[in-house]
Amino acid sequence: METAALQRIVDKYVEAFEKADLNMIRQLYAEDATLEDPAGSPARHGIEEILEFYKAGFAMGMKLKLDGKPRCAGNSVAFAFDGVMKKMTISPIDVFEVNANGKVQHMRAYWGPENVS
Amino acid sequence: METAALQRIVDKYVEAFEKADLNMIRQLYAEDATLEDPAGSPARHGIEEILEFYKAGFAMGMKLKLDGKPRCAGNSVAFAFDGVMKKMTISPIDVFEVNANGKVQHMRAYWGPENVS
Repeated sequence: METAALQRIVDKYVEAFEKADLNMIRQLYAEDATLEDPAGSPARHGIEEILEFYKAGFAMGMKLKLDGKPRCAGNSVAFAFDGVMKKMTISPIDVFEVNANGKVQHMRAYWGPENVS
Repeated sequence: METAALQRIVDKYVEAFEKADLNMIRQLYAEDATLEDPAGSPARHGIEEILEFYKAGFAMGMKLKLDGKPRCAGNSVAFAFDGVMKKMTISPIDVFEVNANGKVQHMRAYWGPENVS
């Protein structure tokens, strides 16, 4: 997958949080995508479960600030960011695996309590 | 897996580069581990192929500087860093999946040309 396409997905992701726009999230993900946040926890399956997850994040007013450039490799992109909310900031690394249609097929967010401030 | 154990693996990893100590790398990995660097490229299989890879990195004098705290989640840890060499710096995000024996079973390094300076 082209680096520019992977970077665009990350840009759109940041913008979706900026606008709290669930429809933008819907457009980024495959219908049958999975999401693990945090990685290793039971996965959410399918776009409807995934949208519920973002709805909660948007309700907390979370905005994303990228920490460095996205790292694109093969059909994946990893990126570090601060998720800034009113009373706390969470600093995960997300990894998106993107399918042949350019949609996020698997999302894993790596973070623990020590990444919350 | 305990956060402290995952963080210790990352600390040992940084130290192995500092000392260019292949034996420390050997102790971190499972015998039958796999390594994809960059992610999506053909995996190296088994500790001997993996050690060949690090031998090359050590020959280039690479030293690691962590960029932020490791992100520990489940049995995985993701971390951003600068790999500093004489004439260039590479800034990947690595993800280690650790097995029940506390050894790295899968390593994937996310980076592309845009993460080299």
